[in-house]
Amino acid sequence: MMKHRIILDCDPGHDDAIALLLAAHHPAIDLLAITTVAGNQSVEKTALNALKICSLANIRHVPIAKGMDRPLLRPARYAENIHGASGLDGPHIPDPDLALTSQHAVDLIIDLVMASAGDITLVPTGPLTNIAAAMRREPEIIPRIKAISLMGGAIGLGNTTPAAEFNIWCDPEAAAIVFGSGCPITMVPLEVTHQALATEDIVQRLRASGRTIASVVADLLVFFAETYRNVFGFSSPPVHDPCAVAAVIDPTILRSHQMHVEIETVGQWTAGRTICDVYGQLGMAANVQVGYALDVPRFWEMLITTLLTYD
Amino acid sequence: MMKHRIILDCDPGHDDAIALLLAAHHPAIDLLAITTVAGNQSVEKTALNALKICSLANIRHVPIAKGMDRPLLRPARYAENIHGASGLDGPHIPDPDLALTSQHAVDLIIDLVMASAGDITLVPTGPLTNIAAAMRREPEIIPRIKAISLMGGAIGLGNTTPAAEFNIWCDPEAAAIVFGSGCPITMVPLEVTHQALATEDIVQRLRASGRTIASVVADLLVFFAETYRNVFGFSSPPVHDPCAVAAVIDPTILRSHQMHVEIETVGQWTAGRTICDVYGQLGMAANVQVGYALDVPRFWEMLITTLLTYD
Amino acid sequence: MMKHRIILDCDPGHDDAIALLLAAHHPAIDLLAITTVAGNQSVEKTALNALKICSLANIRHVPIAKGMDRPLLRPARYAENIHGASGLDGPHIPDPDLALTSQHAVDLIIDLVMASAGDITLVPTGPLTNIAAAMRREPEIIPRIKAISLMGGAIGLGNTTPAAEFNIWCDPEAAAIVFGSGCPITMVPLEVTHQALATEDIVQRLRASGRTIASVVADLLVFFAETYRNVFGFSSPPVHDPCAVAAVIDPTILRSHQMHVEIETVGQWTAGRTICDVYGQLGMAANVQVGYALDVPRFWEMLITTLLTYD
Amino acid sequence: MMKHRIILDCDPGHDDAIALLLAAHHPAIDLLAITTVAGNQSVEKTALNALKICSLANIRHVPIAKGMDRPLLRPARYAENIHGASGLDGPHIPDPDLALTSQHAVDLIIDLVMASAGDITLVPTGPLTNIAAAMRREPEIIPRIKAISLMGGAIGLGNTTPAAEFNIWCDPEAAAIVFGSGCPITMVPLEVTHQALATEDIVQRLRASGRTIASVVADLLVFFAETYRNVFGFSSPPVHDPCAVAAVIDPTILRSHQMHVEIETVGQWTAGRTICDVYGQLGMAANVQVGYALDVPRFWEMLITTLLTYD
Repeated sequence: MMKHRIILDCDPGHDDAIALLLAAHHPAIDLLAITTVAGNQSVEKTALNALKICSLANIRHVPIAKGMDRPLLRPARYAENIHGASGLDGPHIPDPDLALTSQHAVDLIIDLVMASAGDITLVPTGPLTNIAAAMRREPEIIPRIKAISLMGGAIGLGNTTPAAEFNIWCDPEAAAIVFGSGCPITMVPLEVTHQALATEDIVQRLRASGRTIASVVADLLVFFAETYRNVFGFSSPPVHDPCAVAAVIDPTILRSHQMHVEIETVGQWTAGRTICDVYGQLGMAANVQVGYALDVPRFWEMLITTLLTYD
Repeated sequence: MMKHRIILDCDPGHDDAIALLLAAHHPAIDLLAITTVAGNQSVEKTALNALKICSLANIRHVPIAKGMDRPLLRPARYAENIHGASGLDGPHIPDPDLALTSQHAVDLIIDLVMASAGDITLVPTGPLTNIAAAMRREPEIIPRIKAISLMGGAIGLGNTTPAAEFNIWCDPEAAAIVFGSGCPITMVPLEVTHQALATEDIVQRLRASGRTIASVVADLLVFFAETYRNVFGFSSPPVHDPCAVAAVIDPTILRSHQMHVEIETVGQWTAGRTICDVYGQLGMAANVQVGYALDVPRFWEMLITTLLTYD
Repeated sequence: MMKHRIILDCDPGHDDAIALLLAAHHPAIDLLAITTVAGNQSVEKTALNALKICSLANIRHVPIAKGMDRPLLRPARYAENIHGASGLDGPHIPDPDLALTSQHAVDLIIDLVMASAGDITLVPTGPLTNIAAAMRREPEIIPRIKAISLMGGAIGLGNTTPAAEFNIWCDPEAAAIVFGSGCPITMVPLEVTHQALATEDIVQRLRASGRTIASVVADLLVFFAETYRNVFGFSSPPVHDPCAVAAVIDPTILRSHQMHVEIETVGQWTAGRTICDVYGQLGMAANVQVGYALDVPRFWEMLITTLLTYD
Repeated sequence: MMKHRIILDCDPGHDDAIALLLAAHHPAIDLLAITTVAGNQSVEKTALNALKICSLANIRHVPIAKGMDRPLLRPARYAENIHGASGLDGPHIPDPDLALTSQHAVDLIIDLVMASAGDITLVPTGPLTNIAAAMRREPEIIPRIKAISLMGGAIGLGNTTPAAEFNIWCDPEAAAIVFGSGCPITMVPLEVTHQALATEDIVQRLRASGRTIASVVADLLVFFAETYRNVFGFSSPPVHDPCAVAAVIDPTILRSHQMHVEIETVGQWTAGRTICDVYGQLGMAANVQVGYALDVPRFWEMLITTLLTYD
């Protein structure tokens, strides 16, 4: 089997951490690098969290790079109410025994893509700052990116403002660069990720395994459930980011439509909205495969099976 | 029974015409005036269409006034693809034997509200230009308006752009004035009106009556069905505007939530969007009762029963 | 001699009051009406001030109407730091023995223009809210307006923000409607009015006359000098508004160029800026005669001579 | 004498080329690097032009790097009407015998500043894309930049739109990042550079020297004079960019005021405008030393003297 060669660009973050674990051990994925960005927390914290997860899970072959510390134009804004002060609150995770690469995330992305045979898929699960900065810095990467499978945006209501989802809301200008780049994009919006709810029995299956990583994930989900209950009134928390990895592993896990998507950057109330032209009213060429439903049982099967490959 | 004293501010328009017929004959409504505005067609045409419908239906006691010929700031844009060149294409409707009042719609609204005991409900079913112009011209009307029950906006996708519904998209600045006025507002959005589909059997019930007005309405619905099929791929057309009248007659016909709503006026892709703060993310006081579902059987019962009171 | 038939649309305001006195007694002007608007102060105060000045100066043949109480879209903002709490602070001016017409300013403008032979010049010296509201309410006035001679805007720096002059800054949307109307417009910007400085010797000439009105004007100028010194560090205050009247009386008093002018309404730092395309960079047809210099001696001669015709 | 250690970030460009020659040979300047950016022409052409000038002028000790190929967010727009198809039309300049460094301009700027003792002055004479990208990529450079002396902006009218000067208009978002960075900035606007007119007798002094480089500069000025005459109607062309270098060499050559400056990024007609708060109306802390006049004789003396040090 040909593996999917991916770079995971993330801001762990509870669901990012789970996405990372899925990407690192799924047999269909060859995880080339983990790049981190400011989003759920500062880039120092998201980079540290990536190191901690990899260290704990014994993921030692994957370079981890620190990237942009704030959006292209706007001030940094974090999701502390959802992910806590560390960005990964809940379980105690020991200090890492791994180190960051000396390369900046943007350089690492550029170098890997430029050295590739055009077969790398980018999987951004945070604000698109690193990806946009790389595209502007080295436009030659654009035709060499095989695809982008990103968690972000919403067809309908947002989760940070009524109009916008957190990742796109953080850095709308970066999103506008990426969505306007011409790269093949799969967008995994809230409509999909809100179907990936980590219910009590999911948590029990993980815990019942008695394995270390599965237990840490269970603890992460317990904390995440608590903040999602308090902030949004959800009964179970949505594990957004693994959906974007799952859509690379098996595109059929997603139901989706090809359509034109624009990013609002100037609206007074709508900055960061993903304008999904479901009915083709804009008359512009489709540029994004927009997911709208998830094959929930297969998703959990894929995710839990992979998580249970860890000790 | 106390009747609801209303002013219908409309741009007929197929569904406006039906709203007008509902308002004029329903026993719970005292229709004080019909004011017309540019929207589905030019204000000359929408005024003429109001005259034609009233003339044909023998509605002779209600003043009909012509109002603003274009949005407050933006150029006029009509929905000819939906309502045809006349704004009321389909059946032949004879020239009216009624005349417009000499008063401008904005003056008529101001005079009626100022002379009232604060018991008038405005029912706008077109762009909000007349209402906003009246509020700016005579701010004293604002505390004297009992309520506004308007057809317009969307919680999710729009019908004119991916972000905006036609009435609000036409004149976002007018909508911003009205939604920011402090008046009690019930918003009947596309989520509600898209449930009021005039299916084949609705048309048959009207036609089977053998009555003139019911037959004309049936013909209007046939034309409307055709354009909705061609433009949107709907199998049956939504009769938007009568829903806003129905919500006055019987508020329980609507399921709705009180929330904060803002109007986007500056977005590049989102101008005219109604930002419905379903989850209270903006932390602003609720200002609008937003409908999200319709009691469809009771709606049709109310509408057809009333239409069959005409010859 | 054919007199110029004008409507003075103003927000007195110290310099508006002087403009009013110039317009009412200059032999080349037939002052048809005085309409007032919110600007330097609330419309209640600017209307009262117009009544007071006319009452004191025995101007009894000119209808005075109250108009719009706030900008088309934006909240009202007054220039209390320049004109004081009354809008006309300084001299004691007795309560008026005149009354407002019952007509709204916008109606009065519409009625006069529609009844005219197309020979009326509008002279707005405040925010353009009344004029824009009239144009939107009755578009038929537009081709019937002979010309508009307005005080407002700047080629270079503004006086309220670095980018915008007060009148245009108050209601940029109204200005956009008026500048985009197609009417022949003469714009008298800050570059012109800042040459009309009421120096000490001007004040002395007025006072030396011993006449009542001249003395009141001198007192107004003394107050105005004080606020201009405190707020802007000017050694003498600019009497902006009479320049727009003077430009009607004798266009050669102004040096000017025909050019394209746009109004910025959406800028974060520039809303209300008059974009004067001095070098024709926009490639758009000229729509405004923009003054850039004043024949200062002739201006004062005209103004003082006229003021001294009052008792 | 302590030399000023500078990085010249430019888009040659006729006047950039002259700025480069001034910076490379003036005894008060230690030119550490030449970085190039898209602006007057594509970054390929501006980089090539820098190589050509250095090669011809035997400037062999200064690294030359190619930088950003387009603005942060907007599409690239060149000044071909002013600088010709090559960006340096006019004299024939031979192909260079120098090569670009392998480093990207943004990296070179970051490395030099990070390795410095905080004593480097940046002298940008093109769009601010490289500088802004460097600041976002490595925020640690910001407190280590001694000062920025930039050519760009205008207090009054722009030269590309009525509101904006070319360099800032090209990349307003980059300018907003740089002006908001907190670095000490000297802005050399059009008001200054339009005083540095290369009159016929300047050209004659250069030509009369009989030296190669002086003659090439004379030829560049002849071409530049021609396009400035055609496009702007100037009788002599302004040599903008050397003014920013001159202001480093001798700050007293500039008359200037410290004030707050903002960059408009969202205006419909004003994007790229430098909002110079001359009168302190915004009430914000001063962040820029804005030049408004040039000591013209001393400027030409400095420039010509330096140019005549070349063969």
